[in-house]
Amino acid sequence: MKLLTKKNIADLRERIHIVIDGTDTRLGKFFDIFLMVAIIASVAVVMLDSVLYIRLKYSEILFYAEWIFTILFTLEYTLRLFSTPNRARYAFSFFGIVDLLSLLPTYLSLFLGGVQYMTVVRILRILRVFRVLKLAAYMKQASFLASALNSSKQKIFVFFLFVLLVVTVFGSVLYVIEGPENGFTSIPISIYWAIVTLTTVGYGDISPKTPLGQAVASMIMIVGYSIIAVPTGIFTSELAKNMRPQLHPVTCPNCGKYGHASGAHYCDRCGHELHF
Amino acid sequence: MKLLTKKNIADLRERIHIVIDGTDTRLGKFFDIFLMVAIIASVAVVMLDSVLYIRLKYSEILFYAEWIFTILFTLEYTLRLFSTPNRARYAFSFFGIVDLLSLLPTYLSLFLGGVQYMTVVRILRILRVFRVLKLAAYMKQASFLASALNSSKQKIFVFFLFVLLVVTVFGSVLYVIEGPENGFTSIPISIYWAIVTLTTVGYGDISPKTPLGQAVASMIMIVGYSIIAVPTGIFTSELAKNMRPQLHPVTCPNCGKYGHASGAHYCDRCGHELHF
Amino acid sequence: MKLLTKKNIADLRERIHIVIDGTDTRLGKFFDIFLMVAIIASVAVVMLDSVLYIRLKYSEILFYAEWIFTILFTLEYTLRLFSTPNRARYAFSFFGIVDLLSLLPTYLSLFLGGVQYMTVVRILRILRVFRVLKLAAYMKQASFLASALNSSKQKIFVFFLFVLLVVTVFGSVLYVIEGPENGFTSIPISIYWAIVTLTTVGYGDISPKTPLGQAVASMIMIVGYSIIAVPTGIFTSELAKNMRPQLHPVTCPNCGKYGHASGAHYCDRCGHELHF
Amino acid sequence: MKLLTKKNIADLRERIHIVIDGTDTRLGKFFDIFLMVAIIASVAVVMLDSVLYIRLKYSEILFYAEWIFTILFTLEYTLRLFSTPNRARYAFSFFGIVDLLSLLPTYLSLFLGGVQYMTVVRILRILRVFRVLKLAAYMKQASFLASALNSSKQKIFVFFLFVLLVVTVFGSVLYVIEGPENGFTSIPISIYWAIVTLTTVGYGDISPKTPLGQAVASMIMIVGYSIIAVPTGIFTSELAKNMRPQLHPVTCPNCGKYGHASGAHYCDRCGHELHF
Repeated sequence: MKLLTKKNIADLRERIHIVIDGTDTRLGKFFDIFLMVAIIASVAVVMLDSVLYIRLKYSEILFYAEWIFTILFTLEYTLRLFSTPNRARYAFSFFGIVDLLSLLPTYLSLFLGGVQYMTVVRILRILRVFRVLKLAAYMKQASFLASALNSSKQKIFVFFLFVLLVVTVFGSVLYVIEGPENGFTSIPISIYWAIVTLTTVGYGDISPKTPLGQAVASMIMIVGYSIIAVPTGIFTSELAKNMRPQLHPVTCPNCGKYGHASGAHYCDRCGHELHF
Repeated sequence: MKLLTKKNIADLRERIHIVIDGTDTRLGKFFDIFLMVAIIASVAVVMLDSVLYIRLKYSEILFYAEWIFTILFTLEYTLRLFSTPNRARYAFSFFGIVDLLSLLPTYLSLFLGGVQYMTVVRILRILRVFRVLKLAAYMKQASFLASALNSSKQKIFVFFLFVLLVVTVFGSVLYVIEGPENGFTSIPISIYWAIVTLTTVGYGDISPKTPLGQAVASMIMIVGYSIIAVPTGIFTSELAKNMRPQLHPVTCPNCGKYGHASGAHYCDRCGHELHF
Repeated sequence: MKLLTKKNIADLRERIHIVIDGTDTRLGKFFDIFLMVAIIASVAVVMLDSVLYIRLKYSEILFYAEWIFTILFTLEYTLRLFSTPNRARYAFSFFGIVDLLSLLPTYLSLFLGGVQYMTVVRILRILRVFRVLKLAAYMKQASFLASALNSSKQKIFVFFLFVLLVVTVFGSVLYVIEGPENGFTSIPISIYWAIVTLTTVGYGDISPKTPLGQAVASMIMIVGYSIIAVPTGIFTSELAKNMRPQLHPVTCPNCGKYGHASGAHYCDRCGHELHF
Repeated sequence: MKLLTKKNIADLRERIHIVIDGTDTRLGKFFDIFLMVAIIASVAVVMLDSVLYIRLKYSEILFYAEWIFTILFTLEYTLRLFSTPNRARYAFSFFGIVDLLSLLPTYLSLFLGGVQYMTVVRILRILRVFRVLKLAAYMKQASFLASALNSSKQKIFVFFLFVLLVVTVFGSVLYVIEGPENGFTSIPISIYWAIVTLTTVGYGDISPKTPLGQAVASMIMIVGYSIIAVPTGIFTSELAKNMRPQLHPVTCPNCGKYGHASGAHYCDRCGHELHF
């Protein structure tokens, strides 16, 4: 008797798929909740491991915990890859890549010290588990925000290009004015300073010392302070537009045009009367 | 003659309730004003007590003042608890908890040094006294703002989740890049740094030193500088929506036009009278 | 021959008034331009005087220049006071007070060192001179902005009260957590730190050192980063409301109601037909 | 045979113009792409040259690369000047000046050390090359943003004037309060500090030390934190206004309704055909 017939494998695949990717079955729901707890616990382990006095005290426990989580997630990744209907699409999807990046650092840490901390990217996997918690309303809001961002992406690109040009030019000007003796050791560092200043972060690790440098720096500060209006304005007006009352959901019985201004009695495309 | 009959107690309760919670009687008004003065004075006492050279000089006066205020507020709390129609609801309401937290630290300070400064939370009690000052208009505005916040809370939650993921991932990346030798001593500290940077606070107590770290930090700065547009956009468009003049949901009995300006008595399309 | 008859004085008053406060006459225009130059020059003198190596070099010139300007402005103030139709109203108006504050510090500096620098408030006098430059359009925009601020002042007051409570409570919490050994030397200083943090200024002169302090500080940063949406939202929606297309400037021939929705054919108050 | 007849020169001019300024011919397109690569490469060379350990290692290569690029751009500038229909207009246009400023620093560096870094302004030339990449959509968005900025420039000017007055007055006040011993060495430096604070940059290189100074500084911080609402509000409401769907200025020949949705062929009130 052959156990691994083609049919059997397809069946197994289907069943694993339902558990791992679905939330309708009890096992599927349990799996999702277990996964969420495991993700949070494993991220906590990585974080604790990075704190020196905790690492010194509990290094062994943390080491084993990290490997147990990694092996668990490796198993999960293999099952996902095995059960998914379209392997390539999963492997190169956002979550496919995140799943892989959640595992690799631990394996790489056998050869390279420090990399294992990169496993915190597995915090992003929490996003997938959100549907278990019936967070449909939140997902709708998120996609609403994302669509507003998406439809203003050209304007935002123009804005970023402008910011890039401003920090390059101002950074270089400050490099020439202040020079290495005042902390502006190179143009890239000066551009870094310009970004720190324009975004109003202002660490103060580098700051202009000469009167001329301070005058020019004041200009970039005021520019940064003012142009924050630009992304805000773009995004706000896009959101406001999407929130505006929509057209009436009426179809013209003659030409079939859908959506008419509130109060319209006749179709404004063909002139036929509308019935509400 | 029995003084504390049930009826007498209920009467007393009622009378205390009117004075403490009401503002219609003269005594009620006077009580509210006195309370406000007492709150401000007691907060001032706590603040002055925390300033070293004032504490050294006037420690005794401040000590007695603090105890007098605490005893006064304890009395008030007891009276409120006694006179309120629903004890449990008051005790676990926002103001009930604030009232209690305004007292406890002073008593706890007998055993634990330093806690007495937590009595500043009594500054929140000032909110209750606001109605005396006929600040109804302000309260309406506050509830208007609160309702705009409330109806956009799902969007704001999505935004905070996004911020949380961004600071976790970027914080960890910077920890790996910069390492403990540049001040990024652990992942939690690095996440703290990421929050300081993303929110554009930028203390400068921790800041990246390596070129790669500065490049990644520039990215988080620009992200933080841009996504401030998101809460602003959400809140602004919500406010703008609420401010838009609403049409009255009235249908004209003659021409059937639906939706009329507030205050309209006649249909502005056909001139027929409107019935509300 | 009596020169200072009552009539003569009234005449002189009127003529001075026209020159000093008007811009229609040639002399009035010239006076305004001269005044503007004098204000800017005198502010420049004060600023230069505060720079050590300039003061050391040109102390005498700066001293005389400052006194000449002060005497000039004193003369101008006297003439204004003399020629204005309503003396008390001028003296206690915004500009009346600014005019006085522009003079006093120089005289006070005879007794008190350092005060003379306060004469820079005379920079505010520049606002009055703006009308000469035919800046009516700018003034209109300024009053437009001011009216938007004005009609949202209750909301802004509520916001500021909220900010005040937040910084008081958070500042005190940080004082208890961090304590004087980490720079939080008193509650007032800690409230100052909370304002520096909430407004995202972030000097870094005081910053939390303990893990718990950094966690609470992160909360106040995220609060500060988010609630900037509130003043922005209030002001933007107020501005947007004012910019919205206004009602048609049509008067109902029957009831006299002014202003009707675009497209209205009948008065929505009395039902009479409208003529455009 | 004369080679340089007038006709020949005009021909040559025309042909060069088509290549340099046009994108329709293959050579024109190739030229634009080559130019873009050259600009980016030359800016990279300047940046690398400013980094000390790179300059020490590759000084010769960088030196020659810089001169090759400069000669190339000089040639291009000459050709542009030669082929343009209106020489003066080009020379004093934004791009004409940028083109010149991209060359001059290298030549000046023969006499003055350090100036050569100013050639980074050639990064601005990248803007011109954008049309090659079929970035018409982006250009439209940019001009949309620019027009919103343009139509609110009076309001923005008023805002900047307000900011200027606030920082001058507050800066001077802090100078008097804190004085040179706390880092406020002069009024111009104190104004610089006020700008750093008002824009919420907050380097921390200068910060108030006295209680009174910190109280006044808190005020300027809260002002800065709040008035960021002003440019944002101005720009957002301007953008929102421009985004609103405009009605076509068409009158219905039958019922006289003025203003119809874009794309309407029939009046939506009476059903009559519309003529444009």
